[in-house]
Amino acid sequence: MNIMARIQALIGLLTHCNEEKMEDVMLIEGILRKAVKMMDLTLLESVSHKFSPQGMTAVALLAESHIAVHTYPEEGTIFVEMASCGSRDAKMALEFMADMLEGKLEIVMDKIIGGA
Amino acid sequence: MNIMARIQALIGLLTHCNEEKMEDVMLIEGILRKAVKMMDLTLLESVSHKFSPQGMTAVALLAESHIAVHTYPEEGTIFVEMASCGSRDAKMALEFMADMLEGKLEIVMDKIIGGA
Repeated sequence: MNIMARIQALIGLLTHCNEEKMEDVMLIEGILRKAVKMMDLTLLESVSHKFSPQGMTAVALLAESHIAVHTYPEEGTIFVEMASCGSRDAKMALEFMADMLEGKLEIVMDKIIGGA
Repeated sequence: MNIMARIQALIGLLTHCNEEKMEDVMLIEGILRKAVKMMDLTLLESVSHKFSPQGMTAVALLAESHIAVHTYPEEGTIFVEMASCGSRDAKMALEFMADMLEGKLEIVMDKIIGGA
């Protein structure tokens, strides 16, 4: 891994989320924006898509990488993947999202890539 | 990891890429579209941002998750992160991207999440 940039790659599952909230695209996008702001990151753009009959997916493109969210309402679970070159621990953003959605955070992977 | 959905989470570095090509946003977006098509995945939307004086970042939002690309032209390296619920091995997409950009693929992480 011979790159000098330091990237924190983080994957988490938010389980037992509030089913109504996790179907609310506007709410999820708002939570993403707040998480980005809280982490002192810079939002460039965000895109989302609502599936029928349920589920959604959203990505926030950041100056310091990205956050991606894919929901599984039938399981009350949200898959969140974040890559960040920011100085703050990306776990804070996932903890915030879990709180907002009344879920529990399970960290699947937390890896620092590069930074040599 | 008590989710039934099966997600392949893949992180790769494309090193020694062609510096001119990796600054070409249209080219990178085209390569992403071709990779998605090749993998039988469904592109919902893509967003990108060109940094000044160099570097770019792009995300393809898929019906089956996403592909994110962050370039580090000063190092000739591209960070690629892909999450896929598709049936084909996501590594194929990264190998294709490395070929198109004349780089070498180094897999940093390849993990199956869920699918229980």
